[in-house]
Amino acid sequence: MCGGVGSRFWPYSREDCPKQFIDFLGTGRSLLQMSYDRILSVVPKENIVVVTNGKYASLIKEQLPDLLPHNILLEPARRNTAPCIAWAAYHIHALDPEASMIVTPSDHLITGEALFAESVTKGFEFVESRDALLTLGIRPVRPETGYGYIQIDKEVAPGIRSVKTFTEKPNLELAKVFLETGEFFWNAGIFIWRTKTIIEALRKYDPDVTGILDRGLDLFGTPEETAFIDANFASCPANSIDYAVMEKADNVYVETVSFGWNDLGTWSALFDNSPKNKDGNVAQNCHVLTYDCTGNIFAIKPDKLVVASGLKDYIIADTGDVLLICPKAQEQAIKLMVNDARVAFGEKYL
Amino acid sequence: MCGGVGSRFWPYSREDCPKQFIDFLGTGRSLLQMSYDRILSVVPKENIVVVTNGKYASLIKEQLPDLLPHNILLEPARRNTAPCIAWAAYHIHALDPEASMIVTPSDHLITGEALFAESVTKGFEFVESRDALLTLGIRPVRPETGYGYIQIDKEVAPGIRSVKTFTEKPNLELAKVFLETGEFFWNAGIFIWRTKTIIEALRKYDPDVTGILDRGLDLFGTPEETAFIDANFASCPANSIDYAVMEKADNVYVETVSFGWNDLGTWSALFDNSPKNKDGNVAQNCHVLTYDCTGNIFAIKPDKLVVASGLKDYIIADTGDVLLICPKAQEQAIKLMVNDARVAFGEKYL
Repeated sequence: MCGGVGSRFWPYSREDCPKQFIDFLGTGRSLLQMSYDRILSVVPKENIVVVTNGKYASLIKEQLPDLLPHNILLEPARRNTAPCIAWAAYHIHALDPEASMIVTPSDHLITGEALFAESVTKGFEFVESRDALLTLGIRPVRPETGYGYIQIDKEVAPGIRSVKTFTEKPNLELAKVFLETGEFFWNAGIFIWRTKTIIEALRKYDPDVTGILDRGLDLFGTPEETAFIDANFASCPANSIDYAVMEKADNVYVETVSFGWNDLGTWSALFDNSPKNKDGNVAQNCHVLTYDCTGNIFAIKPDKLVVASGLKDYIIADTGDVLLICPKAQEQAIKLMVNDARVAFGEKYL
Repeated sequence: MCGGVGSRFWPYSREDCPKQFIDFLGTGRSLLQMSYDRILSVVPKENIVVVTNGKYASLIKEQLPDLLPHNILLEPARRNTAPCIAWAAYHIHALDPEASMIVTPSDHLITGEALFAESVTKGFEFVESRDALLTLGIRPVRPETGYGYIQIDKEVAPGIRSVKTFTEKPNLELAKVFLETGEFFWNAGIFIWRTKTIIEALRKYDPDVTGILDRGLDLFGTPEETAFIDANFASCPANSIDYAVMEKADNVYVETVSFGWNDLGTWSALFDNSPKNKDGNVAQNCHVLTYDCTGNIFAIKPDKLVVASGLKDYIIADTGDVLLICPKAQEQAIKLMVNDARVAFGEKYL
């Protein structure tokens, strides 16, 4: 899944080049490319499908030159994860009704690629022998308030559990309890299932979407698929797969995994996952001279010098045409700031 | 005088293009150009001489295309104001031994040009009839701690006084007393005198400089002047005209004037002299969206958008290759930061 706009990372993440296409960690590979590399260790190239927004087709081709062109599914509109996953499932199912699939965001950070591959392989083995909707639960390493959690229930296979509850983002107190009990795992939004299992669940729990897709059932996997999607996809109600299916279905399981994971959903998350200099600041790709500064993240275009004094726990992001200076504690407001920028200046700075 | 480097305004003021060459107030004219326009109302074009550092010759020609090329004096080294003024005086004196001259910085802000012209004309009339070193004293409008003051004594002509003392920059308490007494005026560094009067004073109080210049006395005003200066000027000890002459001579007078004046010596001074938006911030040439921000000055390249949250009384200056974020209260440290930048990165960001 590669169609998000990443507005919480504005101004780095832009309409024309969202977060997943950026070399966010200064590794030389964008988050999308890192995701592709990671998946390639468990899924053959010709079976990797990218679902994205129509406007990113050329970026995808540029960043993933090895990806087969017909494996890029271009959404005509953003409808959140449920319609996105539904389309991908219908598409793959049409090509192979016995297929199983892994669904993964393209803008997360995962460390420990071998452990990831091993976990995914085990997940595939689990779902291939039963009608299971498997989600990966990351063993939490801190009382994170920015993530949803999955409460585990009985073990049904080694490392795989049934699910007691999905929970919303907890407050800090509750997150600490979650961490202590050992029963709660981070919901990473990575899913493994057979196409027929998820399509059946979607028909049951998200019939508005499948009602639309089923009208073109014979067209998936044919040259008519694109035209059908272009004409009908936007009619699908936007919904997340968690709300639409995972929190309702009774055949949901969680594989508890321990590879390093971060959704890089916020500047603070990026700060937490980046090496700090001796003053406790993070400098992304830039020269920084700081005085009486700590806990800041500086994300500036390479080769620019930043001299800062008297800043504590700020985000300083400079993309050349936009400079954002915002306390990390206010980062939830960035989406609102982006909207204000739209109201004041149109699309220019988005 | 147009040779300063303006490091207190870094990163806007740069080695290659210091403060006086910048359109600092967004008027479309640089401070130098504004100074030239102002002087042109009292001094004919062919009598306007610019003394600057050798490296700024092309900038001067570009910004002042009407200035006569032989009226640009290029210092081979920076030696503060005393040697600079001494050279200019020797140069003009050689062309006309009866000349009077006004000396003015090129990087100050003056409002009320008509009052300025009137004051200067009156000053010329005063010095043309006596051996007087006349300085302009600006009637203070606030208890400014960033300026030197001149204490007035007896009136010797309408609006012109003898000088009791020159004072250093006062603390706030003292500055308030200065303001209340009405006896203290800001030392603007603008001087009016006959060339023979200042040369005589320099020979008496700054003989190290005149000793050097007198060795080439016959060369001023001739084609040999430049070579002589290139060979000898750097030997002059650096000193300000205030220390070298004004604080020592007994024929010093002050013309008390009331035109609007600011030396624009600091970001705070620029802030104080710029219109504020409704939140009490100053935005120079840029689009600014602020949240919980007040008392800041944003000096950013045109067309850039700045989104700032939670900043109070900061300087935010962005020149494209350098971003400075510094509390206004820390602006005296900017010179040190520039030096740190030099140590860390060489001349690149200076």
